[in-house]
Amino acid sequence: MSKEHVDMWKELGLDLEAHDGLLGILGQAYGDIFLSQKNRPEGMKYFDFVVSEVHGLRIKELIEEKKKGNLVVGTFCVYVPEELVLAVDGVQIGLCAGAEVGFEKAEEHLPRNTCALIKAFVGFRLADLCPYTEVADFVVGETTCDGKKKAYELFSGFKDLYVMEIPQMKRESDRQLWKTEILRFRDELEKRSGKKITAEGLKKGIEIVNEKRKALQRLAKIRYKHPSVISGRDALLINQISFYDNPARFIGSVNTLCDELEERGKSGVSINGNSFKKIVMSGCPMAVPNWKTPFLVESAGAAIVAEESCVGERNTRDMIAGYGDSLETMLESLVDRYMKIDCACFTPNEERLENIIKMVRDSKADGVIHYSLQFCTPYLIESKKVQERCRKEGIPYLTLETDYSSGDMEQLKTRIEAFIEKL
Amino acid sequence: MSKEHVDMWKELGLDLEAHDGLLGILGQAYGDIFLSQKNRPEGMKYFDFVVSEVHGLRIKELIEEKKKGNLVVGTFCVYVPEELVLAVDGVQIGLCAGAEVGFEKAEEHLPRNTCALIKAFVGFRLADLCPYTEVADFVVGETTCDGKKKAYELFSGFKDLYVMEIPQMKRESDRQLWKTEILRFRDELEKRSGKKITAEGLKKGIEIVNEKRKALQRLAKIRYKHPSVISGRDALLINQISFYDNPARFIGSVNTLCDELEERGKSGVSINGNSFKKIVMSGCPMAVPNWKTPFLVESAGAAIVAEESCVGERNTRDMIAGYGDSLETMLESLVDRYMKIDCACFTPNEERLENIIKMVRDSKADGVIHYSLQFCTPYLIESKKVQERCRKEGIPYLTLETDYSSGDMEQLKTRIEAFIEKL
Repeated sequence: MSKEHVDMWKELGLDLEAHDGLLGILGQAYGDIFLSQKNRPEGMKYFDFVVSEVHGLRIKELIEEKKKGNLVVGTFCVYVPEELVLAVDGVQIGLCAGAEVGFEKAEEHLPRNTCALIKAFVGFRLADLCPYTEVADFVVGETTCDGKKKAYELFSGFKDLYVMEIPQMKRESDRQLWKTEILRFRDELEKRSGKKITAEGLKKGIEIVNEKRKALQRLAKIRYKHPSVISGRDALLINQISFYDNPARFIGSVNTLCDELEERGKSGVSINGNSFKKIVMSGCPMAVPNWKTPFLVESAGAAIVAEESCVGERNTRDMIAGYGDSLETMLESLVDRYMKIDCACFTPNEERLENIIKMVRDSKADGVIHYSLQFCTPYLIESKKVQERCRKEGIPYLTLETDYSSGDMEQLKTRIEAFIEKL
Repeated sequence: MSKEHVDMWKELGLDLEAHDGLLGILGQAYGDIFLSQKNRPEGMKYFDFVVSEVHGLRIKELIEEKKKGNLVVGTFCVYVPEELVLAVDGVQIGLCAGAEVGFEKAEEHLPRNTCALIKAFVGFRLADLCPYTEVADFVVGETTCDGKKKAYELFSGFKDLYVMEIPQMKRESDRQLWKTEILRFRDELEKRSGKKITAEGLKKGIEIVNEKRKALQRLAKIRYKHPSVISGRDALLINQISFYDNPARFIGSVNTLCDELEERGKSGVSINGNSFKKIVMSGCPMAVPNWKTPFLVESAGAAIVAEESCVGERNTRDMIAGYGDSLETMLESLVDRYMKIDCACFTPNEERLENIIKMVRDSKADGVIHYSLQFCTPYLIESKKVQERCRKEGIPYLTLETDYSSGDMEQLKTRIEAFIEKL
């Protein structure tokens, strides 16, 4: 590690020794899971570089943004509208939540029966191991699930925190509540940044995020058509990086990669050979470096052709549409777009079932693997509805419940292999 | 059991053999936990009778109500406003959710890591063992926690279900959402009953429920002053029965008991002798026949002097106040009253901490025992805040996490005894 990086981490208050250990493990896992793949697209080199500098150059850039007087806003959820943050020249970043880090410390505050993602975001903070959390001016939480909702109350003791309320149904009164939340967040950003959100500024924000979603949609559609030009884990990685990276640079890199993938598709390049089963992964978000399950699925000889999760199409499916030129119409479009998200926090959430079936049909997938984090009540209960719907549609279905540990790898491997063999 | 009751249960579709077994276990537990107590107030005889006929005479009464064309509305939560149900001459009843019944069947639909209360209400239904669920015209669910919110989606496949949305914060926009929910429920009741909710009808409903809460407040206050005139488990039982019984008869019986308890207080009657420790129980609701923890606490020589739960002061603390004479002002008062409930589903929920401290001070309690059902994320996480607040106030605090099984009785007993000994 460069001395410059080390000095920066020291200044951010990281636990340097533990952080070195973490980066070592991350590097090793990345080598095993990503770099070992044969015949990867050239365009992945950019994303490899981003990961190699995930706690380095990107953090340096964020510190530069802060020096310029721009807000850095940390989040854990696709409900936080990046468009508004960009409208005050801010940067929105997803925070560390994908590894078994600081769990012992987190369990001093949280029940042991808390999902790994929540324990991780509290643990990373308490163990001083997430430079993103440290560099963020403040963190925006949301009321998507009981675990996060109540954990934020404790987290607010360790970090400046602001909470958005997500409604639980999708009727007109819920839209009203959500609109109030959007306006309240606008006010908060204006207050914290000292900048006014103008029609011009918001339009810029909407255009950037739309472009980002469009690039990720393009990637998703190429995979539907040519499931073998890029691995599912590489596509997941790109979706993960979309929460951290500089948006303009990210959009350019995704589109460059997509040009290459389209060429690969035309010339029949395949990383999987000719015979492989196609899987839609559905369920809980997978934060970096939570690559365990996709790695197991693809190591079993299947190709993941789509991600039905917040780190996947749940986040990229819907654009801000018909937003017009006035601040008012843009805000209304923003409200509408975010109300569409098919998170299991809603009741009912039938549109998620429709979306899953559509993804299976569009990608001509052979089966669905539903992935839930242990103790994630919304997705765990909803998985029964996904299972039932898949059964009705004649789509093979496997449900997995796991955490961030490696203890269940063999058991998962056996179940995944048995499922894929039967397809 | 009388032949009449058996015929009634058969008609309701109960599993008669399993139901006989359930009543046998209930009767045995009731004998051990309640009837074995020395020097109980005479006034408890009424409540003993109610329990002995909990699946008998009361169900018969509900069937009579239905024959008269009155709605029977089943609930699992103190957010469902009984005032509105009474305003259409309906009856509101709490449904079975307090015993390990039908868990195997429930676990075919729900994750194993679901709290016992939720598994129980699904299990009672699937095992055909709750005459209340069967006799109810429909069930009103609510979005208080992830587990219930998502379990209702499955439950709706087994029973006519209507869901109210509970906001997660307490700002003006939340009150607006909740008001919409109250009006939507009013419309639903009018539609289902074919009756209009008038100012006169709602006033009657408000007066009855206010009277019920007033009687239970009176009981609570007598215990603050004379902690030894009635046991905590008897007081809990009365709160449990308040969800099932005919309101007018219940109010009369509670007030008759209170007259007796005041007399007992004056003449120095004590069921605990002279030396005992006073405990406020705080946390999750305890549905009939979930008496395990209070029994253990009182068997360890302490007196439970107050219940800080939905089956206790969370439900009875607030009256409908200043409701005026018009339908509009009554509905506004109703909205306000239910927004005050200090459920852990809210974020933040600081008023609960204030209420707990007030209860400890008012009752001169020696300590707080926090009771959480396993996997109840909202109360489990919030217990950390209760603990911290008690520490600051110098109030001894013990937290328990349990379920409906008897497997942990010895372990609980040891911890409770050790805690009480140190007080």
